[in-house]
Amino acid sequence: MNLLITGASVIPMTDGAVLADTDIAVSDGKIAAIGEIPQGMTFDRTIDGRGFVVMPALINTHVHSPMGFLRGCGEGLPLQRWLNEKVFPAEDKLTEQDMYTLTLLGIAEMVSTGTGLFNDMYFFTHKSAEAVIDAKTRACLTYCATDIGNNVEDITTLRAVQNNRRLFADYHGYDDDRIRVSVSPHAIYTCSERLLRFCAEEAARLDTFVYTHLSETVGENADCLTARGVTPTAYLNNIGFFDVPATLAHCVHLSDEDRAILAEHGASVATCPESNLKLGSGICEADKLFANGINVAIGTDGASSNNNLNMFEEMHLFSLLLKGVRQDASLLSPEQVLQCATINGARAMGLAHRTGTLEVGKDADLILVDTQKPHMSPIHNLCSNLVYAAQGSDVHLTMVKGEILYENGQWLTIDVERVKHDTAAICDRIF
Amino acid sequence: MNLLITGASVIPMTDGAVLADTDIAVSDGKIAAIGEIPQGMTFDRTIDGRGFVVMPALINTHVHSPMGFLRGCGEGLPLQRWLNEKVFPAEDKLTEQDMYTLTLLGIAEMVSTGTGLFNDMYFFTHKSAEAVIDAKTRACLTYCATDIGNNVEDITTLRAVQNNRRLFADYHGYDDDRIRVSVSPHAIYTCSERLLRFCAEEAARLDTFVYTHLSETVGENADCLTARGVTPTAYLNNIGFFDVPATLAHCVHLSDEDRAILAEHGASVATCPESNLKLGSGICEADKLFANGINVAIGTDGASSNNNLNMFEEMHLFSLLLKGVRQDASLLSPEQVLQCATINGARAMGLAHRTGTLEVGKDADLILVDTQKPHMSPIHNLCSNLVYAAQGSDVHLTMVKGEILYENGQWLTIDVERVKHDTAAICDRIF
Repeated sequence: MNLLITGASVIPMTDGAVLADTDIAVSDGKIAAIGEIPQGMTFDRTIDGRGFVVMPALINTHVHSPMGFLRGCGEGLPLQRWLNEKVFPAEDKLTEQDMYTLTLLGIAEMVSTGTGLFNDMYFFTHKSAEAVIDAKTRACLTYCATDIGNNVEDITTLRAVQNNRRLFADYHGYDDDRIRVSVSPHAIYTCSERLLRFCAEEAARLDTFVYTHLSETVGENADCLTARGVTPTAYLNNIGFFDVPATLAHCVHLSDEDRAILAEHGASVATCPESNLKLGSGICEADKLFANGINVAIGTDGASSNNNLNMFEEMHLFSLLLKGVRQDASLLSPEQVLQCATINGARAMGLAHRTGTLEVGKDADLILVDTQKPHMSPIHNLCSNLVYAAQGSDVHLTMVKGEILYENGQWLTIDVERVKHDTAAICDRIF
Repeated sequence: MNLLITGASVIPMTDGAVLADTDIAVSDGKIAAIGEIPQGMTFDRTIDGRGFVVMPALINTHVHSPMGFLRGCGEGLPLQRWLNEKVFPAEDKLTEQDMYTLTLLGIAEMVSTGTGLFNDMYFFTHKSAEAVIDAKTRACLTYCATDIGNNVEDITTLRAVQNNRRLFADYHGYDDDRIRVSVSPHAIYTCSERLLRFCAEEAARLDTFVYTHLSETVGENADCLTARGVTPTAYLNNIGFFDVPATLAHCVHLSDEDRAILAEHGASVATCPESNLKLGSGICEADKLFANGINVAIGTDGASSNNNLNMFEEMHLFSLLLKGVRQDASLLSPEQVLQCATINGARAMGLAHRTGTLEVGKDADLILVDTQKPHMSPIHNLCSNLVYAAQGSDVHLTMVKGEILYENGQWLTIDVERVKHDTAAICDRIF
């Protein structure tokens, strides 16, 4: 299928430039041309792009996509109580089939607000893979591993390890990297040192990245300092965790030394501003991460602690927080925030050659954003309007690998009524 | 016109309760019944409310509604430089007729995101009054006064004072309080002590409230301490400013003594979390305001420092900020945030007898919010979904005094295409 978008404002995210009145050609799932369209090229469909921005599909770099079933449960509880009293008991009742439905619920939210790639972390992940394939979106998937209280002799017998090996064999690289698979120990407080070491070694063997939660709360840091005499980041560094590519969710409470470690090893941080506020975890010092040259991407975390998967809200919040905390309005330009929500996420997942910018030869993972609503008028600064004024609902069209998943309020690959119905049935059973 | 909404989830905001499967009758602009509909009552229209929440229209308690024309100008500048380099030079070029168009642009944004009453502060305000009347929404209006650098002998000869007296005579109480008029000195750093005293006396004479910016930045406080030896709040208190009802925008930097003064005098605070972050002003300690029993309402401030007028975003941000700053997830319940965005705003404008809750006999100022989108599914806690998961675009219908202003993506009282066209022409002329 060849598709032409004409006369749009295009933000390729290669250098922050905004191209006015520009055409884009999509062919066989890839971006075939930006600007000058090759003579003789024919198209199955032409979209009038006037009044729209075309930009890379957004990238949600930390999410537990199926957790929407917990949206609004346990409001007001801090992280550890929320996990122990609300999340874990409900999760224990989930079936494998539930995960297909709940992943689709998360994907439906994400594609309707412009996200075309997400970095997921949960369980029953084979079902999430089926949902990603059926919905025709893109994701990095993993079985999240824990072993505290489960002291097996041979770590490769852990169910999450076995499942993740199977997931990797079944899906890593599927359909030209529509799906990639990472290795994911949950966190230092739920995993033994042996498991953490094993995960880094496993990622090296599989040539993929490790993905974990890090320094989300003051308590996590304090416990680690008490038990091991070092920060969580130093602990992981000491056991070789950062010798492979690593993507680290949260990183709210880092020391200067921690940041130097992450920078030295080229690790990526997925900051989750909304979840960190909502659970009372704190505010990530992203300005210091940038100062260290660390790759900063943005995640929503699960809808259970957010309470949605809307990357426009997340960009908005991320862009504002440090200005207020530091009392410095000059921090974090709109262009920088858009990078964090696109190409930096692709880098964090080893997918920068495929997605995250609009470039000829890359996959056609893009969105059209409506700039015709009153709240987007006038346009003095398009990047500013996207980050500060836009709503997720301004996304008019979401395309992944050249396929339109969402257009003008309609989901083209997901039966949303069915998904909501099945989600309600799951909740009726669990709660 | 009599209108019936059937089978909705209703949040009257009188006590935080959510009424399931409930009918609401609207008659002659007022709420005629909630729940049991009187026998024999007939209706011109019935709206199927299943899948919707009915709640009071939101109240934006601090806004400069016409400032949308500056959206995205001067990104990254702190308050004083932003005002002097960007805002004031552009405002100097505005004409009276521009203000009609620009107020409509602001109203279009507000009604599409559920706001039915706003507390405005700007100039050429007679034109804003015309816009409010034509758009059939509700507002408190005022000519904002300054006199620094304009040392008139007789303060009543100041143009803003004369204009505001005319505005009061022309519009205060218009159409059963569709419009009210306040007295508004801009801020302690742009007004002489004499003008501030005068404004409080004027408000007493007119039986209305004073409305000003207060302690928005650390710099404002420092300058006041240097010049007068007291905080801005103590300064205003010393000159009798709080002897009349007062609504104070921002209040980011208050001392314990300041809060005690505001509490003692029953003043209202309009907190503007987004603007305060964006301009690097800081974060309002709303938890301490609540602890003092102060009436806390929410405002967006102008779209120039936000950059939209979306009260759902503002609720969302307000609800999250202090949880993160204090590292306490239990702060600010969803119900409390909804109160701040509804009845507390009505109280701040002396309109609690008219609007802010759904009660029989009050004006039918209400919104229908769609709960059928994936990001609002499932519903464990409706108030939580409204504050944490909803987008402004989930507003399906906005009604003020029984009249529908916005429904299903359509503006019924504003020609939005014309407003956008005229706004573009204004910007072409000014920039």
